[in-house]
Order: sequence, then C-alpha cells, then structure tokens
Amino acid sequence: MFYHQSISPLYTDLYQLTMAQAYFQNQMHEQQAGFDYFFRKIPNKGGYVVFAGLQELLQLIRDLRFQDADLQYLKDEGFDPAFLDYLEDFRFTGSIYAFREGDVVFPFEPVARVEGNLIETQLVETLLLNVLNFQSLIATKASRIRYAAGNKVLSDFGLRRAQSFGAVQASRAAIIGGFNNTSNVLASKKYNIPHAGTMAHSFIESFGDELKAFRAYAKAFPKNSVFLVDTYSTLRSGMTNAVTVAKEMESRGEKLQGVRLDSGDLAYLSKKAREILDYDGLDDIKIVVSNQLDEYVIKSLLEQQAPIDVFGVGTSLITGKPDAALDGVYKLSFVQDNAVLKISDNLQKTTLPGRKKVLRYFDRDGMFYADAIVRSDESDIDRMIHPFEKHKSLCLTDLRYEEVYSTAMRKGEVVTKMENPQDIHQRLLTRLNLLPVEHQRFDFPHIYKVGISDKIMKTRDQLLLKHR
Amino acid sequence: MFYHQSISPLYTDLYQLTMAQAYFQNQMHEQQAGFDYFFRKIPNKGGYVVFAGLQELLQLIRDLRFQDADLQYLKDEGFDPAFLDYLEDFRFTGSIYAFREGDVVFPFEPVARVEGNLIETQLVETLLLNVLNFQSLIATKASRIRYAAGNKVLSDFGLRRAQSFGAVQASRAAIIGGFNNTSNVLASKKYNIPHAGTMAHSFIESFGDELKAFRAYAKAFPKNSVFLVDTYSTLRSGMTNAVTVAKEMESRGEKLQGVRLDSGDLAYLSKKAREILDYDGLDDIKIVVSNQLDEYVIKSLLEQQAPIDVFGVGTSLITGKPDAALDGVYKLSFVQDNAVLKISDNLQKTTLPGRKKVLRYFDRDGMFYADAIVRSDESDIDRMIHPFEKHKSLCLTDLRYEEVYSTAMRKGEVVTKMENPQDIHQRLLTRLNLLPVEHQRFDFPHIYKVGISDKIMKTRDQLLLKHR
Repeated sequence: MFYHQSISPLYTDLYQLTMAQAYFQNQMHEQQAGFDYFFRKIPNKGGYVVFAGLQELLQLIRDLRFQDADLQYLKDEGFDPAFLDYLEDFRFTGSIYAFREGDVVFPFEPVARVEGNLIETQLVETLLLNVLNFQSLIATKASRIRYAAGNKVLSDFGLRRAQSFGAVQASRAAIIGGFNNTSNVLASKKYNIPHAGTMAHSFIESFGDELKAFRAYAKAFPKNSVFLVDTYSTLRSGMTNAVTVAKEMESRGEKLQGVRLDSGDLAYLSKKAREILDYDGLDDIKIVVSNQLDEYVIKSLLEQQAPIDVFGVGTSLITGKPDAALDGVYKLSFVQDNAVLKISDNLQKTTLPGRKKVLRYFDRDGMFYADAIVRSDESDIDRMIHPFEKHKSLCLTDLRYEEVYSTAMRKGEVVTKMENPQDIHQRLLTRLNLLPVEHQRFDFPHIYKVGISDKIMKTRDQLLLKHR
Repeated sequence: MFYHQSISPLYTDLYQLTMAQAYFQNQMHEQQAGFDYFFRKIPNKGGYVVFAGLQELLQLIRDLRFQDADLQYLKDEGFDPAFLDYLEDFRFTGSIYAFREGDVVFPFEPVARVEGNLIETQLVETLLLNVLNFQSLIATKASRIRYAAGNKVLSDFGLRRAQSFGAVQASRAAIIGGFNNTSNVLASKKYNIPHAGTMAHSFIESFGDELKAFRAYAKAFPKNSVFLVDTYSTLRSGMTNAVTVAKEMESRGEKLQGVRLDSGDLAYLSKKAREILDYDGLDDIKIVVSNQLDEYVIKSLLEQQAPIDVFGVGTSLITGKPDAALDGVYKLSFVQDNAVLKISDNLQKTTLPGRKKVLRYFDRDGMFYADAIVRSDESDIDRMIHPFEKHKSLCLTDLRYEEVYSTAMRKGEVVTKMENPQDIHQRLLTRLNLLPVEHQRFDFPHIYKVGISDKIMKTRDQLLLKHR
C-alpha cells in the first residue's frame, strides 16, 4: 500500500565502504556498535523539528542488497575480493530505536539509535542521514507554514523548483508537516495523498481568448475547475470572465471551485476578487493564491485580512530555504558495550557516550516540559543537567514522563507499522498540542530544555579525562 | 556509457494532465506550440549561471511513456478514457533548441526553446524545470566555489545533507561546475566521475586507540589513505600519530596521501599541520579540510595563506543554499505560428513573444560582450534594446557574434552528443575564459547585458496594445 523503492547500497559515501573493508580485514566486523542520530541546530530559526522519513528509511535499509553490478564495480575499483564476498550476502541485521515519526524533537537529543555490527551500522549511515535530514527539514518547514496559515488550505506546488528527484519525498514530508495536498502526481499516487491543481497561463494564451479558455476548461472539468485570472489583467479581464463562466456553470448545475491569483499584490487583489465574487452571489467560490509564498508572507496576508482560502507554496517549502538542510549527524556511542567519545575543544561537538534513550517530562499542566537524555537502563531521574553548562540543572522530581523511543527495527525486521503521511500528521498534531505555543513561534521561539542524566555526564567526564 | 534512468510521466504537476485533457477534448492537441525556458534571477548573488542538466533531461524526455499502472491510476482519478487512450501511445515527438550544456547563461534570455504539439510541450514542462533548475543551480554554485578555490582540489562531500535522491544529479552538476571528485559512490559509478574519501571519527573511536586505527587503515589502503586527525586532539595526538604511521608506511614503500582536519580553526591548524609534516620531510602529504565550507570560507582561508590542498564541501554545495533554487520558468511564446503574450503590470514579468533564439556578441578583444534575443529568422542585428527600459540600447554594429543555440532534440530524437560531466566542464572552462572576470566576482558582479531586437520589441508592443 505505501510507497517503497529500493536503492543501491552504493548510494553512500566512499569512506563507509573503505572503513568497512578495513574492519573486515582486521576481523572487527562482528563487533557490536551503537550510533546516535541527532542534530545540533533547528533550521530556519525554529523552535522544534518535526521528525520525518523514518518509515521510508526502514524499508530502504531492510532491502539494502549489493547487486552483481555493484560488486563488479567495487572490484574494478580495487576492493578486496574477500570483502566483496562478504558484501555479497550483506543485509542489515541490526536494530533501530527511535522517536516515532511525526514527533517533535530538539537539538542534541538522540532522535534514533542504531545498533548492529560495525560494518552494517556504518554502511547505513549516509542513507539514514540523507533520508532523515531531508524529510525532517521539509516536514518542519511545512509545519511552520501551517502555523502561519491557521486553518487555510495549503497546497504543495514545489515540484518545478525541487532539488531533482527528491521532490517525491518532499511532498510526503510536506503532508506530514501539515500540507493538505500536492500538485505532484507521482507523489500523490505513491503515497496516496490528495492532489490539486489549477491551470497555467499558457492554457489561456493558447486559446488567445480568456473567456474561451475558461469555457473549454469548465467543459472538461465541470466540478473541478479553478480559473487562473491574471494572464492579462486580474480585475479588468480575468475576474469578469471567471464570473461569466461561473454563472454559466451554475445554470448547468456545475460548480466553479475557485479562482487563482498568481501575481500582483495578493492582499489587495484577493479583497477585490472576493468583492466581485460576492457581489454576484458566488460567495462559495474559493480564492487560491500562489507566487513566492512562505510563512512570513502568509502571516502578513492573513494579518491584512486577505480573504484567501488556499495557499499554493512552492520553492520555499520544497527546498526548506534559506537553511535548506538539517544538520543531522550520526555518531558512534559505544562498541562492544564500551562507551566511546569524540572530543572537541567545543563541548557542543563532543559526543555523548554510551547507549542512551530519551525521557520526555511533562509540567503540572500536562504540557511538554523537558527532554532528558539518559542511559538506556535508567528510568525516572530527579534532575537533569545542561549538556554543556554543568552548573545548570533542572529538577524533575515528581514530574510525569514518558518513554519516547519505540523499537523501529529489530534484527533487520521492520517492526514499526507503516502509516500514510496523513496519519503521521495526526500524530504531529497531538504532539504539537502538548508543546507550549512559545516554542512554536516562528521567530525567536522559547528554547525547549534538553538535558542529560548524572550518569551520562559522569561517563563523559571519565572518558574526557582518559583521553586528555 | 552514461547514466540514464527513466521516470514516470506522472512526475509532473496535476494541471499539466488536466490541461492536456482539456486540449484533447477541444481538439486542440495537434496545434503546434513553442515554449521558452528562462530564469529571472541569478541565485546566490552571482553574475552568471552555468547551464546544466540538458543531456540527462533529453534522455528522460525521449523515454517518457505512460505505463499501464499510470493510466489505471488516472482512470481511477476520473480522467477521460478517450484521453487516456491517447496517452497510451504518448511519446514526445517535438524538438528542443538550446544553449549547449556547460555554457554560461543570463537572466531573461531563453536558455532553451521547446516546440511540439500543445500536449507534449505541456507534459514535459515540470520535468524540464525540475531537472534544469536544479542542475544549473548546483553547477553554478560549484563554479563559484571553484572560483574561490583557484587550482586546489575540490571534493563533493554533500550526500548526507542533500535533498534526498537528487544527490546523484547534484554530484554530476558539481563536476560540471568545477569539482574534481565526489564521495557519492553511486554518482561516481553512474557518471564515471572520480570518487574520494577519507575516514570517519567512528573508525578511530572503534579502535579506542588512534595509532592502532591509523595502522589498520594503512594496512587496508597502503596507497589511498587519508587520516582524520581531529578525533581527540589534532595537534597533541592526531598529527603525531599520523606522522608515526606515515613513516612506517614509507619504510614499507607505501605512501600516506593526506591528513584531514574537520574542526577547529582550519587556517591555524592547517599551518601547524603543514609545519609538522614538513619538519618530518613529509612535504608531499596533502592537507584536506572539511566542516561547513563554502565559497566565502574558502576564499578567506586562502587569503590567510592556509596551506590547504583539498577542500571537502558538503551542505553549501549540494543544496545551493541560501537561495537553494534557480527560478527558471517555462512560458508559451507561440501557437500555430502566432506569437502570444502573458501580461503583467510588471514589464519584467511580461513574456517575450514569438519564436526566438540568442546571438552572443563579442567585444573587440574577443570577449563576451552582450547577448541579443532575436527572432529565430533574424541574423546579425545593429543594436539591441534593453528588455524593460526602451530608452536604453546598445550598438552592435560590426561586432562579431555567434549563434549559441544548437539542436538538442529533433522530432523526439536526441541529436546532442552525450558527454561525461568532465567534458562538459571543459566546455564551461572555455566559456568562462571568454567571460570578463568582472562578471565572475562572487559578490556584486558586473551585470552582463542582455537585450532584445527591434522586431521582438515591436511584436510585444503590438500584443500589449491588442490586450489592453
């Protein structure tokens, strides 16, 4: 039922394969390792990230196989034949523990933990980062736009500006973040998400006559037409012709769905268009707008009481600009049950050692209060410590908490239920309802508290001491 | 030999299919149309765009076919069965005239012209925009980074931050723009481009001992090792251990290729690392750096005389941030030999009507001077007019010019020779050599002149009059 495609394990960074060969040649490949996926910075100045891409990633990881052509290629590139024999039977047999897709997540907390042998955990790194970083970026951007748009309809019109074939995944993530539909027909088919569309200027121009073009389109789509009214002049021509044809349609028992404005001042024109439609009793015809929209423009339009029903958003949504990337990383945290550390002069870039999970604490009002990164064998803790500023801590005594991790994959088998993007969006809604609104502002939001347990801090201190 | 994959014609905006059905039902589908592909704004403040993606696009367009599952889907969505019968035999039978891939192109000039019947020209729109906008964006960004990096080696390390599966196309475009190699193994295999890689911090940590890790890697790759030296401390540990193993390798007739710095102040650390290597007579070991690089950071590092040999660039290259998109559009310019126009209050958004091509004029020194948009039946013109400010014109008398269009596709057949990305980069180099350097500055570049012929201006004026 849900979209799935396989991808070559060569869709990775070269060093994953060279490191894997070095592990193999050093007989270390059966050693068990754990990696954390986390990010350091919320893109585009936001207060939270919407975690997305997990379910699709799990299927891709489950099905990773080296084909003969892949192995032949690696042989030609000088890889060790014994190692290539090993890869011939490769499949991912590890486990993945993670937040549920559609949850809200925050900087520095492990969003997912991957366990398995050194080779398999390393060989999935790049794919994991590629899929989760991108879909989380777009779902987060979509969620910001949804925040600005309130209960208006949001359409993904981004395909033409998308970064190549990633567009299909982007449309999925847009729905998770809160969009209602997409213009991308392939994404609509693959993920079973609603599609939407209007018409292009070229359609009007090819008739040479706007009225004729509207009539022809209405004939083809008597129930699903949205007329583009700005090809020649929105107010002097487009709206007049749209009203004429809308009334013709009414007289035949048909129904024009809407008009689309794609240029000019959208606040001014939408008000004028609304007046024209209402004057003619066409008050149920919707106003659709597009043209370089983002969360800021939409917020401004609605503050100006622009009577807009549908926003078509392209470039800004589909690329997650200006940041255009979530900076997620994948860092080793233990090998053979030994916690390990990457050190940096900057404590923020020093990793958190050991097998960990996340507990989410609620305040007295039942709202999300703080996330504590703890050892996987810890339960409720009394206080958490700021991850980089030891003198800061937060009391958690007597607060309710929940375990936010679930098992996504166990020994190579996907155990998470596959959902459609709309269902994942429903989860996001329930989570956003619990996230205080000051974290949801799209400029200068209140920073959500993430801390570490005493035990994690002590392990890090010990390892720092050992290496210094 | 060159990478090729097919894509479903459903990889398009819904309105392309609804408009196509309306054309079909109105018996207009055999009408011949012409569309121009052009952009309005150079991304990321640059002075030129590197045109990329064309050859791959041509193959995708040539092979567009509706599969049974696609047609069944459209049937279920309510499309007209007669129209779907028509789509069953659909293939693109039109022609495409365009700049050569790897040429430099400028705002408002048609970069490509697509001709064919109304349905086929409409059905390729979204795919064309998706492919050309993205690859041109990345090739342009890569070219900016190349400009900053001079003759240093540039490696694409972007896969983990790329916008999902578009990463493969991005690596191709990076090579066209001037990168030397990529970490993306799949892109390397598909496009026959060099790959490169070093090692991750996890590799060092999994040994628990940096020296041991370097030795193990050297054993696996005696000729291709680059050691990552910042896992614990670049100067107190990483460089010392790297030198030790480099000397052991030398004594065995092997050769360490380089060391990689991935954190800290890269100017300071690269100088210290160079001193350490040179002190030990290892002056041919290269210094590779990575970590949030872009054209500005690279320029600054080289201005500080940082002795860096290889720059690994990730996020900034692979997403083309901060703009993250080229704003290319696809606009109808004629139907059945009649020039058509889309009007806007803003003359910049009014299209240029009619079948057109571009002539590139050279100055007396043989450098690119100006591009003139002319009717396809015009040759040499005496002056060109500013496209939006009529009172400005440029004399072109006695200047040499060239026709920059070539036929890329004729009646559905690809006639452009397929090249590998390195060859396309060679073309870019010959073109950049002819582009005055003031257009190549990466901040506030001199604006390259693009104008229109008298005839184009008159056609536009007539059509404006007709519609107003």
